[in-house]
Amino acid sequence: MTTALNRAIPRPGGRSARVQAAVHKATLDLLAQDGRAALTVPLIAARAGVTPSTIYRRWGELADLLADVAVERLRPDGDPADTGSVAGDLQAWVEQYRDEMSSDVGLGMMLDVLSARNGALAEGKPPVPSQCAAFTASQIEIIIARGARRGEAVPEVDAVMDTVASPIVYRALFSTAPMTPEHAQALLSACLKTARKVKPAA
Amino acid sequence: MTTALNRAIPRPGGRSARVQAAVHKATLDLLAQDGRAALTVPLIAARAGVTPSTIYRRWGELADLLADVAVERLRPDGDPADTGSVAGDLQAWVEQYRDEMSSDVGLGMMLDVLSARNGALAEGKPPVPSQCAAFTASQIEIIIARGARRGEAVPEVDAVMDTVASPIVYRALFSTAPMTPEHAQALLSACLKTARKVKPAA
Repeated sequence: MTTALNRAIPRPGGRSARVQAAVHKATLDLLAQDGRAALTVPLIAARAGVTPSTIYRRWGELADLLADVAVERLRPDGDPADTGSVAGDLQAWVEQYRDEMSSDVGLGMMLDVLSARNGALAEGKPPVPSQCAAFTASQIEIIIARGARRGEAVPEVDAVMDTVASPIVYRALFSTAPMTPEHAQALLSACLKTARKVKPAA
Repeated sequence: MTTALNRAIPRPGGRSARVQAAVHKATLDLLAQDGRAALTVPLIAARAGVTPSTIYRRWGELADLLADVAVERLRPDGDPADTGSVAGDLQAWVEQYRDEMSSDVGLGMMLDVLSARNGALAEGKPPVPSQCAAFTASQIEIIIARGARRGEAVPEVDAVMDTVASPIVYRALFSTAPMTPEHAQALLSACLKTARKVKPAA
């Protein structure tokens, strides 16, 4: 299966996949051990057992590698929890999303992705869509499709992205007062008022 | 008057203000002339007629200087247009905000601000609230206060930030399909349905 979400993933078990796994693991180990300010491509290369030029050739600058590692960490582990209703599923998902994006780790991952985008923009490269938004939308889609199959009224994916996910991320990025759980649930409640019955996807 | 918004502004006419103005102008000139990828602190210093160490001492890294320049460019020029109604004022403001934030220049400014925040986070510095959100909120506040004085029903500032400004910024940052004018106005229309009469601020 080749989709927009996984076409960049190298064949599992191939040399390319092994290099990627080793470099990602070395990056995460060094991040945990010494913090981001101390991180350099040569240090990561030495830890991963590859040459620095392997990293530069494949990823580009350190910022690009950090963005790639961040995207892998942001990739959802599986389907969102199935609580039996769209409202319950979205409540659980929103609380987890808010918690992750408001943490230093989640904020750092988003900022790594955006810093790489800034580098690309500065060099005049065409913008690439960030997988972050695709990951988020895919989780919401799963919840809404489940609800539609149960015959429930459901909100639109875009409505959840615009009025629930976006303000959580905006506040995490631009404010020092991240969103409270109560505020996030109030935004979701307002969004759920727009729910309506739809035909389940075939 | 000292507020959170302007306490970092040096005294106009002082040496510090002159250095800031010269360095900001040199940065903008070089950005326009050679693009961001070519920008370095020594080049900016030479153009501004100061030493590189003046810049490093006052701003830190290039990313911090770029963030400071971006914040100055994001600072509103004046009060939002007064069309005679809250709905009209917000419609005009939303279209201008959407247009600015979806442009390469606006996106680049937000990414400069966030890249500096990423550097600070990586070095373990405490987060500082970005002035971007404060600027946006202050424009919305002015519109809403005008409406309240006219006796109109008005939405809450937070509601406009969460359900109109945030999705515009989220899509600009994370998507390659920035928000359309129609989509932004539809989000505003939904937000305006939450408007209610309030006592005007004294």
